Amino acid sequence: MNEKTRVTVWNEYIHELENHAIAAIYPRGIHGAIAEFLGQEGDLEITTATLRQEEHGLTEDVLAQTDVLIWWGHRAHDDVQDAVVDRVYRRVLAGMGLIILHSAHFSKIFKKLMGTSCGLRWREVGEKERVWVIEQGHPIAHGLGHYFEIPQTEMYGERFDVPAPDTLVLISWYQGGEVFRSGCCYNRGRGKIFYFAPGHETYPIYYQKEVQQVIKNAVRWAQPTFSLGEALSGGAVPPLEPLG
Amino acid sequence: MNEKTRVTVWNEYIHELENHAIAAIYPRGIHGAIAEFLGQEGDLEITTATLRQEEHGLTEDVLAQTDVLIWWGHRAHDDVQDAVVDRVYRRVLAGMGLIILHSAHFSKIFKKLMGTSCGLRWREVGEKERVWVIEQGHPIAHGLGHYFEIPQTEMYGERFDVPAPDTLVLISWYQGGEVFRSGCCYNRGRGKIFYFAPGHETYPIYYQKEVQQVIKNAVRWAQPTFSLGEALSGGAVPPLEPLG
Amino acid sequence: MNEKTRVTVWNEYIHELENHAIAAIYPRGIHGAIAEFLGQEGDLEITTATLRQEEHGLTEDVLAQTDVLIWWGHRAHDDVQDAVVDRVYRRVLAGMGLIILHSAHFSKIFKKLMGTSCGLRWREVGEKERVWVIEQGHPIAHGLGHYFEIPQTEMYGERFDVPAPDTLVLISWYQGGEVFRSGCCYNRGRGKIFYFAPGHETYPIYYQKEVQQVIKNAVRWAQPTFSLGEALSGGAVPPLEPLG
Amino acid sequence: MNEKTRVTVWNEYIHELENHAIAAIYPRGIHGAIAEFLGQEGDLEITTATLRQEEHGLTEDVLAQTDVLIWWGHRAHDDVQDAVVDRVYRRVLAGMGLIILHSAHFSKIFKKLMGTSCGLRWREVGEKERVWVIEQGHPIAHGLGHYFEIPQTEMYGERFDVPAPDTLVLISWYQGGEVFRSGCCYNRGRGKIFYFAPGHETYPIYYQKEVQQVIKNAVRWAQPTFSLGEALSGGAVPPLEPLG
Repeated sequence: MNEKTRVTVWNEYIHELENHAIAAIYPRGIHGAIAEFLGQEGDLEITTATLRQEEHGLTEDVLAQTDVLIWWGHRAHDDVQDAVVDRVYRRVLAGMGLIILHSAHFSKIFKKLMGTSCGLRWREVGEKERVWVIEQGHPIAHGLGHYFEIPQTEMYGERFDVPAPDTLVLISWYQGGEVFRSGCCYNRGRGKIFYFAPGHETYPIYYQKEVQQVIKNAVRWAQPTFSLGEALSGGAVPPLEPLG
Repeated sequence: MNEKTRVTVWNEYIHELENHAIAAIYPRGIHGAIAEFLGQEGDLEITTATLRQEEHGLTEDVLAQTDVLIWWGHRAHDDVQDAVVDRVYRRVLAGMGLIILHSAHFSKIFKKLMGTSCGLRWREVGEKERVWVIEQGHPIAHGLGHYFEIPQTEMYGERFDVPAPDTLVLISWYQGGEVFRSGCCYNRGRGKIFYFAPGHETYPIYYQKEVQQVIKNAVRWAQPTFSLGEALSGGAVPPLEPLG
Repeated sequence: MNEKTRVTVWNEYIHELENHAIAAIYPRGIHGAIAEFLGQEGDLEITTATLRQEEHGLTEDVLAQTDVLIWWGHRAHDDVQDAVVDRVYRRVLAGMGLIILHSAHFSKIFKKLMGTSCGLRWREVGEKERVWVIEQGHPIAHGLGHYFEIPQTEMYGERFDVPAPDTLVLISWYQGGEVFRSGCCYNRGRGKIFYFAPGHETYPIYYQKEVQQVIKNAVRWAQPTFSLGEALSGGAVPPLEPLG
Repeated sequence: MNEKTRVTVWNEYIHELENHAIAAIYPRGIHGAIAEFLGQEGDLEITTATLRQEEHGLTEDVLAQTDVLIWWGHRAHDDVQDAVVDRVYRRVLAGMGLIILHSAHFSKIFKKLMGTSCGLRWREVGEKERVWVIEQGHPIAHGLGHYFEIPQTEMYGERFDVPAPDTLVLISWYQGGEVFRSGCCYNRGRGKIFYFAPGHETYPIYYQKEVQQVIKNAVRWAQPTFSLGEALSGGAVPPLEPLG
């Protein structure tokens, strides 16, 4: 019996193949970098999947074996097939955890689960970001200090068009004058979703230890915690109580 | 200059045309009954629209003249064109209020805005419903007592697969043993959404004064309160603050 | 019959009497400045009260005639009598609106209503604050743009030890590197509470039009909207439904 | 190094000593019954404390060794010393979990942390309660079905005068016609609080396996997950960023 949390790291994996500078930062892809640091955790079992694999590497079977799915995308959101999006969507509502990274705010799956445009302000000038911890007792804040800094980042600014998070864990400050709700928890169906803003492909952000800490925490927070055998809702049902 | 809140009452308007018993209860349609009691309010201006009108009566022009849209549907959710759903969706994110009634929990527009299945348990045996007021200071609770009763209702029971409401105003008790979050407020984009569970077509629920009170309150709560000229999010923007 | 919203502006009124520089900014006191701009609104009726008045100017009778109470304090939180705090507390739970300004985050009444320490980081170097609008459709955001700036402010930074707001309307950016949840809505009992961070006594912040706009909006949002005659909770009650 | 979660079960322990019928149900006290089923969990280490012990058994040292505190009280809320309440309060804000059971809704510590009256409707006629699971993916719902029943209970009904929970996990249905938010999660400071309604002293409710499951789940959810060395908020701080 498998006691480990099974994590699938999905990446569109285009920038790293087409741009030498990005390839230099992430030679095995962003998914490879994330899989590497997660793979050092004894309670986690890691696999990866990418856009250009068949069914984007997210077959029914892969998802059935996934407790937490991590998603990075940017250039090719529209290339993700709707059938795969629907498959991921159903699996999240059934309880799979989902961690949405950075530019995946515009992914089909995140927009579908949020029900909003998920738009935001952005700017890429390599400015500094400071990530403040708002809920210091939350599992995703475990091991962090009051804040941590990312030396060079792409700015993501408010207004971020998402529903108010069920729990707002992180707010970012940017040197150029903006703020951003950069760590947002959502419950949807039986699934837990975490949006985490840092992670632009042109900076080595996923090698930073605080960023890795947040992602490790998020995986543990998002893993399914239930064992219901029935459907989520019951449709037509007889009365439980005799009616007078 | 128009100072009144412009309300459009949308109804699929099928049951009333095809079923004599329902027609007897709602001879001018459910939309007609709702338009009638709302029309007696001096600050509201009411129009109606139905499924079988061109573009379901919800043209760009109609929506541009609508502050609050009320939606009732049941049998024909799939017949609503995606283009019209997208139009309503964009208008809600831009600030239009939306009131979703009863079986419209399964409408395309509500599912799209919620990002979940919106499933629930249900049973139709004409049992009693008691609607408890959870947030007594909320505008939608204005004029209500601690609870009100609906003598005969269709049961809608938990688990209701929606995101946790931004504000939970009403919870219903049913004689047969279930509970339901029957009055749920959501903010999405700049728009306000209220889901209100009572309203099955075979009972004269929309003639009940407490039900009418809730809908009148909801219209006033959901009306747009802003006057922003710019887009909701800014896309690429220059830094506001000089970077060192 | 009184149709106007009755606003009482409370100020501890010590800085303005003891410090010439502050008196030069607020010659009639901070309460006087707030009362002046609110008094120009046709739907509002304004009175003021201060710490050194008998019962701090907040007698049972005054509170019974108050729909919304605005509170500014800083130096003398401990001088506010517990009996008056309890009186305000009961009135808020019964439905009176309460607007807590700036350093009143440490007032007895706010700490009592929040149930937390209400601590925060702070720094007074006259830096710039930029206030971002997070919920653009909220009544308190009415008439604002995407953000507004306060040229010189006292910094209030996270982690702000309050419960997560029921609605988070504003987040501030500070030049020195911090962020702050600077506009927070709470429902407590039947009352609505708004915490608004800007307003240090050494800067002319309450003369700024966007700040005035927020306070005017908050008064209208916080006014009571119900008319229940009974107590908030019922204590011992007989069954509503016959038990089998 | 202690890897177990240290749980202290606190009970006022009066009913069981003064009433034979209650003593027959809980011969070792309600705290004894709770300690017994929790003590069978290998990851938990259980101690108990009661009102009539010195400092109510909750010395600084005991609290410093407590990860999660469970609280049951009913008759003697006013006998709990304010100094001990303040001690528990500070420890919760610092990160200790707190589980408030049944009639402890009126305990000093819960009212202080909630900031509201915590009043409710109640009735004791031994009616049936059905507890519905609203958030099926929440850790506290682990192992439960769609609902569970308590054959005989004291009714606790809305309106429950508490802040809207950060997460609403359970809603109860009562045979006599009421509903109740019976499983409510709150974050306060770094601490997690869970209010759980079932547990009247005259019924053997804490022997019921679903009730035990909820309490076990709640202990694990509420345990501290952080390791910050600094104070919760920073007071006066120098700028992090050089000011132009």
